[in-house]
Formats: sequence, structure tokens, C-alpha cells
Amino acid sequence: MSSSSPLHDLVFHGKEGGTIVFVVMDGLGGLPHPKTGLTELESANTPNLDGLSRQSSLGSLLPVGSGITPGSGPGHLALFGYDPLTSNVGRGVLSALGVGFELQAGDVAARINLATVDEKGIVLDRRAGRISDDEGRRVVNKVSEAIDNVDGVDITLVHEKEHRAVLIMRGENLGVDVAETDPQVVGMKAIEPEASCEGSERTAKVVKTFLERVDDILADESVANAFLIRGFGIHSGYSTFDERYGLSALAIAKYPMYRGVAKLVGMEIASTPSSNEDTVKTLESSFGSHDFYFLHFKDTDTRGHDEDFEGKMAAIEEIDAMLPRIMDLNPDVLVITGDHATPTLLGEHSWHHVPTMIHSKWTRPSADTFGETTCRTGDLGVIKGIDLMPLVLAHALRLNKYGA
Amino acid sequence: MSSSSPLHDLVFHGKEGGTIVFVVMDGLGGLPHPKTGLTELESANTPNLDGLSRQSSLGSLLPVGSGITPGSGPGHLALFGYDPLTSNVGRGVLSALGVGFELQAGDVAARINLATVDEKGIVLDRRAGRISDDEGRRVVNKVSEAIDNVDGVDITLVHEKEHRAVLIMRGENLGVDVAETDPQVVGMKAIEPEASCEGSERTAKVVKTFLERVDDILADESVANAFLIRGFGIHSGYSTFDERYGLSALAIAKYPMYRGVAKLVGMEIASTPSSNEDTVKTLESSFGSHDFYFLHFKDTDTRGHDEDFEGKMAAIEEIDAMLPRIMDLNPDVLVITGDHATPTLLGEHSWHHVPTMIHSKWTRPSADTFGETTCRTGDLGVIKGIDLMPLVLAHALRLNKYGA
Repeated sequence: MSSSSPLHDLVFHGKEGGTIVFVVMDGLGGLPHPKTGLTELESANTPNLDGLSRQSSLGSLLPVGSGITPGSGPGHLALFGYDPLTSNVGRGVLSALGVGFELQAGDVAARINLATVDEKGIVLDRRAGRISDDEGRRVVNKVSEAIDNVDGVDITLVHEKEHRAVLIMRGENLGVDVAETDPQVVGMKAIEPEASCEGSERTAKVVKTFLERVDDILADESVANAFLIRGFGIHSGYSTFDERYGLSALAIAKYPMYRGVAKLVGMEIASTPSSNEDTVKTLESSFGSHDFYFLHFKDTDTRGHDEDFEGKMAAIEEIDAMLPRIMDLNPDVLVITGDHATPTLLGEHSWHHVPTMIHSKWTRPSADTFGETTCRTGDLGVIKGIDLMPLVLAHALRLNKYGA
Repeated sequence: MSSSSPLHDLVFHGKEGGTIVFVVMDGLGGLPHPKTGLTELESANTPNLDGLSRQSSLGSLLPVGSGITPGSGPGHLALFGYDPLTSNVGRGVLSALGVGFELQAGDVAARINLATVDEKGIVLDRRAGRISDDEGRRVVNKVSEAIDNVDGVDITLVHEKEHRAVLIMRGENLGVDVAETDPQVVGMKAIEPEASCEGSERTAKVVKTFLERVDDILADESVANAFLIRGFGIHSGYSTFDERYGLSALAIAKYPMYRGVAKLVGMEIASTPSSNEDTVKTLESSFGSHDFYFLHFKDTDTRGHDEDFEGKMAAIEEIDAMLPRIMDLNPDVLVITGDHATPTLLGEHSWHHVPTMIHSKWTRPSADTFGETTCRTGDLGVIKGIDLMPLVLAHALRLNKYGA
């Protein structure tokens, strides 16, 4: 529901209530292993998730829409209760916020992949062999030092991690309706950054000139010798968690992208944890200071992309083992969900439902294990991403009754 | 869906069809008892509900929206197929209709609680010790005889039941955006009736003056010495059940509130039954005269508010015992549902799904008991409140096909 809907005005008043821990296991949903018929989550040894499920309401989360495979940006916006179909932002904006760049209204940001192309411009590797952080930083700095303005538009280039960087353009009359140059497959040339709307023609021209100059600067590189651009976005502002829900929120996330989306909705950002262990430690040391804690765990998604079934099981088991420490803090509501499915069988994000649990005093338990199968017959039914936050707030007794 | 929706115009034509008995067990949904894991409904001995469920389609009703705890007004409007988010009315309007007051367009109505306050105005009891009908009537009449006009606005005050009364204001330029004075908790002063919109400033001023005069009039009362006001509403008119569905409908309800909401949607109101037994007797004696019968049973909600698990079980069992008499009338469709959950564990209305059954010749049975657990996997799935009426009409074969 939008922040200006009558329902929002009537029931969300920032009522005092319980403390919420909101755990996102990125790409949690999976597909059954052909030999066992069990998903990654169902195959993993998860005594703590199973124990919690005996005291929780379960459901199947539909992140964005039927058949829709969400990226992490829309996936997280939906989890946070912001309609990702009306409030879509380019992933570039999230990345820019994630690397700590202070965006101004009107700034256009985009994601950059360092890539390897041959002499004809054919893409050989879309991630430049997943080069190291150091190598990636060196190449990005090389470009950054050579270009700070194109046709009157200020250019900022920030290395993110490995082959990833973010480009921010600041100037008048910029738009986001520019074709992404990443062809998404190898063996093809990069796509031309054409504008699809008049309002983005200047941006398209700047991007084109920028990329031509990048090609010259990186001509002597053997691996990372080209930039692919995608995820154009413009920063236009959101209502904050505090304004929307009356919640003071803290985000604890290792990767810039997730700190970015949390910052976008006004969460405070904890110092960057160095590991999953450190994520939980940060929660332990900060617990009590905020109403809402967003914890992000990435490995489930990464192992899904790697098509590593056992690796994803292990990633789930690692989080499972840390759950008792979260429960020891005694939050009023604990949510465990994902921003989308990343089945190892597919090796990509997918449209499938995501197993979801809400643990509180006010639940209707239905199963003694946590998995896609048990969540299917859980009390929450199939629940849309944007409908999760109102339900979470309800379990924290933070919503007002609607009508007498 | 609204009465002007394309779907409505296309499929609702007042087609002849079966007779519908629509039973609302107020606050039916519950939460599992910590010792048994069974809800109030699942713990009750309900041979007749269980027998019916073997021939019924089951589902979990989501009254208004995800996480939303509805009041009885929005809950019933949704059950009757009127979108409670676009057609919210203050409970005062429903109460006014319920006590038989003939509202005119533009009248503003509000609910009054007789309360006990100390010499500083601190609320000691929000319900004046739940005083008797007689005492409540005496105090309300005392005020009513002293005030019939404030600043040019006609004042009508009608005693409802026990500590409850309804205030109706008739005059020019009245609005409903006035703060409710009921602080909802004891130990605090009543809230000032401030206007939150310009259009309600006159109303706020009238309410303020009215309450000051009430304080003077009730100064010598020891128990009910103050009024708390809430649920401001304005009557703006609805399409009737007949206009909307082509149904002649009869409401059989003991409490004014529920007769009020039925009247709001154009149902005929049966003479007020004195008991649950009398409610069924009224159905028996009137059966055949109408297309649709709304039966309201309150005790399930009352026992939920009282946090009386066994009392709520007994209230369910009482209705269960009367079901064979309803079935003997051989209605084409029998619906059993609730307007919201009132779990005894919580002692308040809640956001949880409500077990719902549609019995007809055209069902897909799935279980041999009726409860939150079996409804969760029923054929209707999770069904929104406003989507229930079209489904009920369909089971009565009263809807037209959509498209050729």
C-alpha cells in the first residue's frame, strides 16, 4: 500500500510495540534436487529453523508478482513494504548509496561490470574473469583519474567489489531511459546506449562518449578492457521507515547493494560486518537501540548462482547455527525470508515463492520443519512481498485497529 | 469490487437463484491454546460444523487486508462485498442506524462510552463499571433532556446498551475529522476533540462545548460522570443489496451495531431477537420470504474479549447445536464465517485469517472437521473479505457468465 493510502493513514501511526528482527537469506527459495525431491533448504540440516517453525506462522512469499523474477533491489523494496512496481529504482542508485556516495535529487547512477572484449568488441567475459578486488580497483581508478566530466556532466566512478563499479552522473536534464549496454551473454558486442525517450537523449550521448573514452584508456589491459553498463536509475526520494511505520531501523549487511536499499528507505546503517559471524555480533552489540533490525546474508544467493547445491545447503546451515544467538536476544518478532529464490538447479534468480516464517507470540504453527513444502500449507498462505511488512507490524502489535 | 466496477455490471444482474443463509460468528478466528496447539474452534465439540465441512468448500478469510485488524464495521462491510477501504464509515453511523435513528445525508454520528473519571479528569474506568442497561439509560436521558442544541447544531442522544450510547449531530458544514476523545487506556485524561481538517472545525467546537456541558450535568454522578466519544462517521449512502446483487435480504441480529451495518446496505431488519435461540426461531418463521438471510451471533467475540477460552468454545458449541435446524430449512447455500478473529489469547480483535465454509451442492470438500487448520488447506484458499460475496452468489447460481 502506498504511504498516502487511506489504509496507511488509518492504521500506521507509529504505535509503540515489539522489537523486530528481519532476516533476509538472499535467494533462499530453491527447487527440488532431482534425486531426492528435496530443495536446498529441505536438504539442509536445520534444527533451529525447524524448532522455530513449530512456534511460527509459515507462508510462501511471492516477492513482486506472479511469474516475476525480481532483482535484489525490487525484491528488498517489496520486503520493506514499498511497492517495487511503482517505486522501482535502477540498481545503480542502490549501488551508489551502497558505496556511500551521497546522491542528490536528479543524479543518475548506473552499475558497471568490468568485462573482457576481443579486438572486434565481442564480449568474451562479462565479469573479466571475476577479477580480484585489487585488480578491479586499479582498473576503475585508472579510468576515474582520466575522466571527471563529459560534455558538462560531472562523472564519478566508484569501485564496488571485484568486477563491479558504479557510475554517477550529475548535471542538468539527465534521464534513465537509456539502453543497457550489457548484452547479458558472451559472443556478442555490447549494445549501443540509445535513448528510448527524448528526456534521456543527453544522458545517452554522455554515456556513449564516456564509453568511447573508456575503450581508449583500457586498450592496453588484457583482461578488464571494457565497461558494460546497466541498471540506470535516478534518485527521487522515498518516505523513510520512521515516517512510514514509526520504526527506527538498523541495517546490518556486508554488501554495499543491501546497505544501499536500506539507506534508501531511511534505515541507519551499522558499520559493515566482515562476515556472517560479525553480522550477528553487530546485532548482539546493538540490540535495544532500535525497533527494527534488518540482517542480510548473501551466501545462499551466491551458491545458488554457482549451481552449488551442497554449498547452498551449507550456507543455510551456517545461518541456522547462529539462530539461537538471535533468539537469546528475545525479539518480539523474528522474520526469516528471502528477497527471491535462487535455485541451484537454475543458477539464477527465479520467480518461485520464497519460504517465509514469522515467529512471535501470536502465531498459528502448522509444521515442525521449515521448507518450501511446509510453507505451502502454512497459515499465511501465499503472501505478496509488499503485504509482509503490515503483517510483521501486526505481529509486533504496532498497528491500530481499522474502524471501530 | 465497487458497484460501478465493470465486473459488477457484467455478472451481477439479479439473476434468480438459490436461497442463502449467511451466518456470522463474530470474532470466530482464534489462536492455538499453548497447551494443546488447538484453537477455540478446534477445541470445541462441533459435530454439526464438522459434518457440514465434509460437504463444503473451506477457506481462510482475510477480512480487510494483510496485517489489518478490522473493527466490526469494516469487517461486516467486507463480508457483504463492499470495499471497506473505500467505503469506511464511522461506527457511530452504524450505531445510529442500529438504534433505529433515521439518518439524513450529512448527519454526523459518533459512539459514546459512559465512563468514570476522577476530579482531575483522569479516566478510571472507560466503561463506567459496565453499568446496567437501566442505569445507562437513566444517565443518557439526564443529558438528553438538558441538551438538544449546541451552537445551532441539533443534538440527538440515544442510549444503546449498558455503557454505550450514540450521538447524532445535524447541521450545516459538519465533518468527521475530529480526534476521538477516548484515550483507550485508563490513567490518562480524555483527549481533546481537535479537528484535523478545516472542514471539521465546526464539529470539533460543537463536540467540545457539548462535553463541557455534559461534565456539568453529570458532576453529581458517582460512576458514570463523563462521556468518551469515538467513531465519528457521516452518512453518505450505499447501493443496496437489492440494487447491487438483486437480493432481498433480511438481517436477524440481536445487537444494534450489526442491524446498523445491515441497514446501511439496504437489508430489511427483522424484529430484534432476544437470544441466539430466538435468532434461529426468527429465521425459521421467516424462511421463504427473502433471498438472503444474515444471522449474527455475538458471543464468540465477547468471550474472546474476555480472554475466556472455554467460554468461547461454549459459544461455538451453542451455535453448532442449532445448525441442524438451519439445515432442515434446506437453504441452497449456507455460509459460516466471521468478521474478524478475536483470539482469547490476545483478548482483542486481530488480523488473523477467519475459518470460512461455503456449503452448497457445488463444493469441493477437503476435510472432515472445521477449524483454522483444515480451512488453511481448503479449496477456497486464502480469500479476501470482499471476494466472498461473489463466491457465495456463484454457489447460489446467481451470477452470469462473464463473456461468451
